[in-house]
Amino acid sequence: MIKVGIVGGTGYTGVELLRLLAAHPQVNLQVITSRADAGAQVNKMFPSLRGFVDLAFTHPDEAHLEQCDVVFFATPNGIAMQQVRALLDAGVKVIDLAADFRLQDIATWEKWYGMTHACPDLVAEAVYGLPEINREKIRQARLIANPGCYPTAVQLGWLPLLEAGVIDTSYLIADAKSGVSGAGRTAGISNLFSEAGDNFKAYGVAGHRHLPEIKQGLARMVGKEVGLTFVPHLTPMIRGIHATLYGKLTQDVDLQALFEQRYADEPFVDVMPAGSHPETRSVRGANRCRIAVHRPQGGDTVVVLSVIDNLVKGAAGQAVQNMNILFDLPETTALNNVPLLP
Amino acid sequence: MIKVGIVGGTGYTGVELLRLLAAHPQVNLQVITSRADAGAQVNKMFPSLRGFVDLAFTHPDEAHLEQCDVVFFATPNGIAMQQVRALLDAGVKVIDLAADFRLQDIATWEKWYGMTHACPDLVAEAVYGLPEINREKIRQARLIANPGCYPTAVQLGWLPLLEAGVIDTSYLIADAKSGVSGAGRTAGISNLFSEAGDNFKAYGVAGHRHLPEIKQGLARMVGKEVGLTFVPHLTPMIRGIHATLYGKLTQDVDLQALFEQRYADEPFVDVMPAGSHPETRSVRGANRCRIAVHRPQGGDTVVVLSVIDNLVKGAAGQAVQNMNILFDLPETTALNNVPLLP
Amino acid sequence: MIKVGIVGGTGYTGVELLRLLAAHPQVNLQVITSRADAGAQVNKMFPSLRGFVDLAFTHPDEAHLEQCDVVFFATPNGIAMQQVRALLDAGVKVIDLAADFRLQDIATWEKWYGMTHACPDLVAEAVYGLPEINREKIRQARLIANPGCYPTAVQLGWLPLLEAGVIDTSYLIADAKSGVSGAGRTAGISNLFSEAGDNFKAYGVAGHRHLPEIKQGLARMVGKEVGLTFVPHLTPMIRGIHATLYGKLTQDVDLQALFEQRYADEPFVDVMPAGSHPETRSVRGANRCRIAVHRPQGGDTVVVLSVIDNLVKGAAGQAVQNMNILFDLPETTALNNVPLLP
Amino acid sequence: MIKVGIVGGTGYTGVELLRLLAAHPQVNLQVITSRADAGAQVNKMFPSLRGFVDLAFTHPDEAHLEQCDVVFFATPNGIAMQQVRALLDAGVKVIDLAADFRLQDIATWEKWYGMTHACPDLVAEAVYGLPEINREKIRQARLIANPGCYPTAVQLGWLPLLEAGVIDTSYLIADAKSGVSGAGRTAGISNLFSEAGDNFKAYGVAGHRHLPEIKQGLARMVGKEVGLTFVPHLTPMIRGIHATLYGKLTQDVDLQALFEQRYADEPFVDVMPAGSHPETRSVRGANRCRIAVHRPQGGDTVVVLSVIDNLVKGAAGQAVQNMNILFDLPETTALNNVPLLP
Repeated sequence: MIKVGIVGGTGYTGVELLRLLAAHPQVNLQVITSRADAGAQVNKMFPSLRGFVDLAFTHPDEAHLEQCDVVFFATPNGIAMQQVRALLDAGVKVIDLAADFRLQDIATWEKWYGMTHACPDLVAEAVYGLPEINREKIRQARLIANPGCYPTAVQLGWLPLLEAGVIDTSYLIADAKSGVSGAGRTAGISNLFSEAGDNFKAYGVAGHRHLPEIKQGLARMVGKEVGLTFVPHLTPMIRGIHATLYGKLTQDVDLQALFEQRYADEPFVDVMPAGSHPETRSVRGANRCRIAVHRPQGGDTVVVLSVIDNLVKGAAGQAVQNMNILFDLPETTALNNVPLLP
Repeated sequence: MIKVGIVGGTGYTGVELLRLLAAHPQVNLQVITSRADAGAQVNKMFPSLRGFVDLAFTHPDEAHLEQCDVVFFATPNGIAMQQVRALLDAGVKVIDLAADFRLQDIATWEKWYGMTHACPDLVAEAVYGLPEINREKIRQARLIANPGCYPTAVQLGWLPLLEAGVIDTSYLIADAKSGVSGAGRTAGISNLFSEAGDNFKAYGVAGHRHLPEIKQGLARMVGKEVGLTFVPHLTPMIRGIHATLYGKLTQDVDLQALFEQRYADEPFVDVMPAGSHPETRSVRGANRCRIAVHRPQGGDTVVVLSVIDNLVKGAAGQAVQNMNILFDLPETTALNNVPLLP
Repeated sequence: MIKVGIVGGTGYTGVELLRLLAAHPQVNLQVITSRADAGAQVNKMFPSLRGFVDLAFTHPDEAHLEQCDVVFFATPNGIAMQQVRALLDAGVKVIDLAADFRLQDIATWEKWYGMTHACPDLVAEAVYGLPEINREKIRQARLIANPGCYPTAVQLGWLPLLEAGVIDTSYLIADAKSGVSGAGRTAGISNLFSEAGDNFKAYGVAGHRHLPEIKQGLARMVGKEVGLTFVPHLTPMIRGIHATLYGKLTQDVDLQALFEQRYADEPFVDVMPAGSHPETRSVRGANRCRIAVHRPQGGDTVVVLSVIDNLVKGAAGQAVQNMNILFDLPETTALNNVPLLP
Repeated sequence: MIKVGIVGGTGYTGVELLRLLAAHPQVNLQVITSRADAGAQVNKMFPSLRGFVDLAFTHPDEAHLEQCDVVFFATPNGIAMQQVRALLDAGVKVIDLAADFRLQDIATWEKWYGMTHACPDLVAEAVYGLPEINREKIRQARLIANPGCYPTAVQLGWLPLLEAGVIDTSYLIADAKSGVSGAGRTAGISNLFSEAGDNFKAYGVAGHRHLPEIKQGLARMVGKEVGLTFVPHLTPMIRGIHATLYGKLTQDVDLQALFEQRYADEPFVDVMPAGSHPETRSVRGANRCRIAVHRPQGGDTVVVLSVIDNLVKGAAGQAVQNMNILFDLPETTALNNVPLLP
């Protein structure tokens, strides 16, 4: 049994981790920390966990995380980087669901996240936890930077095209739409039901923190910088990301075959039949990415539609997938539940 | 392995049965019928099932249901009663998720459902599939009438009070609210997103088909007719029923203890701590009923709050629970998933 | 032209007042105050007002409210009572949309609102601004206590029955459902889209501040205390209240005629045809209350369905209605817009 | 007073026309037709109109539309073209809210709409009713083709850029998102609350009927064919369209000034301050288009955000605006209501 600790379990990625880990046959959930809610029963805050999780939140100072085999950080940005070194030194594996270790370029990270990084050397060691690209490195890692939600949907959508070198990488457009849970379980006026409900808007057009993460990922695929415009939008649903990607083909290619071949062995990427329009609800609650690729009117524009559940394949599910890889378990362990539809 | 057939799998109870049965370790899903969609891949209609269900819909005439161990009817009312006798004769167990066998009084059934019943004798044999009341009879049954969604939430809420004889049964009020999936996957203007969204209304105040079913159930608990006013409402969410029950106490009693004791051994009924307000999402996707009991301002009115997922404990989940009982499997098999929150 | 001031315009009742007053032909909007947002353009916070309201928020200390003819308080509870005396002394009429002057019994008020009242003598003078009951007193008032949202829907629903003395007032049940905007434009986790969306729950079963307000109103109708159980619920929509009222008839009566006669001359109360189920959206954005009265299965239980838009007839619209009465304008001035459906 | 007839008033554009026209001081609503619902009170179908519209639906054969000054067609495609000639011959002005007269190229129309056009000569005469482009032609017209919802939002977003000739018109991308009311008040499974709710998807990527309409409009702006990729999406809200437009600048230009100058005199187009993200709810229920223009990271990609209410500026409101122009009324008559927020 894997001894698991969770730091910061009061947000949506936290409760989602608990949902998935509670059903994991190889996991022994040891401790879940919260400074503000120490002592409170977890299932009092999240009644959905009644009957499944009987832990109380532990104060970080008394968590003894060093006795765990793996620790997940489901914290705000800037927390994990303060604690990771001690855990690694104690032989604990770490999976950070926040952004502390996602960007290899420290200056870029410090610019977008507005703080000084506490451990640049560990950034260099950290493995970006997108298994469809980095599976072997993940297996060997001590420290995993779990990808952001938008970056997961967008990178998986572009991957076959960029690896195959069939589109103009100087002018990529990613128009992405997220459900409101992506903003977290944090009180804020713009995420109130009466603000976000029955409403649609773009945000962060001038620049969003996931832009450099996506650009870094795409650059790795092609070995050079890419030109990317990324516009995120807020849509009145709870879970789900839909990325609509636009690129210009530089050569004729069987797009459907390209995507199907690239993902033939991936357990969590589903290339839909030609002509499909994947719906976010088709992956609700599940660690899946469903993708369709189109070439409207037979022109030279390729349109990729990519959907995930932002809390699962975009966060907690991918983290558990990374844990499974780290501990040599079947990758789908505890992740093979059927999406909830309707 | 249990050989399972499903008749009428294109509605919400059908896809929900498939979601649950796909994860059931003892089930071999043999056939799923649809007259209109025969030949079509099930997962083309419900992409959430891609990777889990590879069956195509079979025409009813070619379904060979008699080779199954158990057949679920997820059909409109009036279908099952045409086919059940042949199946029973062939030794097949039947679980009807529609209303054909729910009311023991044939005249009442015919009045509310507007048709002549095809097999009154089988009604007499059918067992009402509410395990918290009828577990032993279910175990022996050939034909199970799976309860309606409102009746499940309402009966489980009243049960401890009526069995204990502590309220005035001549004046019971059940104010119930349902998500829109309760209306089924049937095109109808009143269930359009633009009609049911951002809107709340009562319906069927003059009389709803679940009224006689609830009254029959309550009468069995107390051995006499009860006086019940039942008002259903449509609320703009997809899944969930919230029943708010009002009764007049006839004696002083420790309500919390009464409820906790009654449901102490029930795996799927959760009596919340005193003072709780159960939320529908706390059971989303799960075969649970969560209940809280209140006595506002210490008066003689008791208020019970009871929530279920109408598609799970209110339909497909309860049907699988009944199947587990029928086949002597642990009752929670394939039904112990954590609710999806948020 | 009426010189109007608004204190506290950054909440939903504030923006709704602005929406209505911007279209009022007799109103000159002089000032709108906000301590936190002084100096900011109102329409920057509420872009819907671009082109209609060009004011900036004024700091309360520089508002010169004494130069207004009427001042609306769209503030949290406890603010208006600090400022009303000076305004009244300066000859300004005051309409308080909060609860400071709603309860005549000071001890009750202080118990439910958790503070000491600053001006009990003014409470005695204040007129409860429900025009369907108090129109003549409102006309003469200096200080109007604008009713709460639930109390408006519930009292208008009970009024004909209680005035006529045809139901048992010792056992009244009001099961009420509100959209989320009723909780205000205040950051709080429970009102986040991802918490309140696709979810239904009761709250405040042990006691809600609107309970004593409703009981006070009903007691006035019948000249004695009434027995009332009031259970509010949160429903995933933005605007709207639906009250479902249950009472026991003590005599036979033509309910439809009773309601139609009582409200025959009321411009903002619409008695729907017999058998109707009013929808909240049928009053969305409008100062209307629509009511239907039922007697299920011809028994002695009467069921009243009453809907309003909580921000209009339940708050800002009723406040403007009161202003129209105060200033001898046609009562429907600026309040006769068609509800927005769908 | 203008004598107005409406053909086909049972859909969302119909009820929206009624909402707007009921408040129009110069309109005398003579007749509203419906074949299926002839004889029924309009406000029975749409209770929001109780107190405002007292008409019953008239059978088309008894409508005497030739006695009207203007007739609106709020019908499915292919109806208006059968009846327009007779009305024009009788001196009646016609505003078609469907697509029969939107495309000047008959072959293109017949391909996308799948029928033979009944009156190509009238297509040639029809004026495309986008006042921001065609105001003077509209004033002289007999027959107006009211634009589609997507085409309104998209064309108004591109207009300043294309007229100024500052972007590469060979590679335009329009990623558009619509609320569900855009699909009409027609029973269809995909528009059910339980299907469209809490879900996001693209549709019609291979080709949507609004594509040729948009391309025609853009081509007129620049005098040549344009290259356009148009992807519509369905978002879980009732009203609203958000278009996100991507183009490549061919020269440096002050984008904010360009947009502000182009729309300086337009009463219904609001250019938001630099850096804004317009929300669909900021135009809910109103005949407005709000636009923001961005140049992310100072690159050569321009991003335009354009929002409308699909039922108002995207349908009924624009039709009334066209009527106002046709009859030399102030263009904002009956169209100057404040958007409903929240």
